[in-house]
Amino acid sequence: MSDGQGPNGGVGNGSGKPSMREALIAAAFELFLERGFEQTTIDDIVQLAGVGRRSFFRYFPSKEDVVFPDHERCLADMTELLEQRAGDGEPVTQVCDAARLVMRMYAADPAFSVKRYELTKSVPALRAHELSVVWRYEHTLADYLRRRFAGWSDGTLRADVIAASVVAAHNNALRSWLRAGGKREDVTSRMNHALEFVQQSWGVTTDGTSDAPAQEPEEVVVLIAKRRTPMWRVVREIESTLDESERN
Amino acid sequence: MSDGQGPNGGVGNGSGKPSMREALIAAAFELFLERGFEQTTIDDIVQLAGVGRRSFFRYFPSKEDVVFPDHERCLADMTELLEQRAGDGEPVTQVCDAARLVMRMYAADPAFSVKRYELTKSVPALRAHELSVVWRYEHTLADYLRRRFAGWSDGTLRADVIAASVVAAHNNALRSWLRAGGKREDVTSRMNHALEFVQQSWGVTTDGTSDAPAQEPEEVVVLIAKRRTPMWRVVREIESTLDESERN
Repeated sequence: MSDGQGPNGGVGNGSGKPSMREALIAAAFELFLERGFEQTTIDDIVQLAGVGRRSFFRYFPSKEDVVFPDHERCLADMTELLEQRAGDGEPVTQVCDAARLVMRMYAADPAFSVKRYELTKSVPALRAHELSVVWRYEHTLADYLRRRFAGWSDGTLRADVIAASVVAAHNNALRSWLRAGGKREDVTSRMNHALEFVQQSWGVTTDGTSDAPAQEPEEVVVLIAKRRTPMWRVVREIESTLDESERN
Repeated sequence: MSDGQGPNGGVGNGSGKPSMREALIAAAFELFLERGFEQTTIDDIVQLAGVGRRSFFRYFPSKEDVVFPDHERCLADMTELLEQRAGDGEPVTQVCDAARLVMRMYAADPAFSVKRYELTKSVPALRAHELSVVWRYEHTLADYLRRRFAGWSDGTLRADVIAASVVAAHNNALRSWLRAGGKREDVTSRMNHALEFVQQSWGVTTDGTSDAPAQEPEEVVVLIAKRRTPMWRVVREIESTLDESERN
């Protein structure tokens, strides 16, 4: 998102002139919104952009991909971020940070993102394409968590469930932001709120120096209690759950 | 799954003779496994099944659908189950029960399910189709939970995250069961274990007489603590979280 190939056809490559890739995106969107996605051919797009048909396929494998031009780069950024953080910090925080890359991609050009959201909702082929992209993000996050939770009891289950939770929370916040018109100042607080909701449920408390839980797969105690539960019952519940010998 | 149109082409309609639908499924699978999915045409399938081309489309909208012949019925069963339980019981338990319908569909014919799993893994078009089916299940569960959590703070967020968690846990258990060869006696315990994992995190404790939380959106307190946390810190944490006036 920083090399000038932003989704917005009108800005980005520093020369003030849209790149060929940007021109193709702008032309495609103009036609998709005017005629509909299915009614627009790749020939229509290259004609309006004033480039050859082969140029289109140099940038985009299919007509669907021109609608989501930055997901490939975002997936690569996500993979890179998670590789850098392979063994550090609280795992759920790391995947939430990785999910924020997607949010930032959308927030980089809110007007484009809102238009695309409207278009995608109404075109089954685009929704199918979006599902496959979302699946790849979720798979990338789950893969990372599976490595972090290797050796835990229910490690892969935990990884898959947390990855799905993070993606669902991210998409809930992203869509509600897009439906509300995509105001730039809104997006971060909405996203933080949604991701914190997941972190509160699934975040792992580590001792700050190490996150290797292999020796202690059940390091964390989760207690769920009704607000009105009397304190003596809460304490009894904790005591029966905690291993007495491990308490200070 | 009880009207004789089971996925297994060899059994089911009570007459001992496969129905036309079953014959089409059996023929399709024979060809898909022999030649590959992409290399098999609908004409090949109807020819082997000994029926006309129009019969195929009477049962299946597309070649992909013949690989997942029972999802439409399962989705309808899920919707019906959730309608019956519109206002009753713990919401997360209800969606877990609904998810078990999918598990039972797979478990009704393990050999077919294992074959299909192998086939789907290797064919991108089938994986895309499966993603769209999974999305519809998730959407059905989320819709139900959104109604149940209407009036809660973060109701739609909670609904979306729990639905995604349930689907991820279900699919984790289902796939590990299929990878292990699909032994019939295995599936229920694997599934219960995975769904209980989600219920422990997201299940809602109600007072047993009502599940209407609208007046009390933050009815539940979730505490996550390290095993070694001293008890005084646990208690202080709970006290600062609970509203003092609401405790007995």
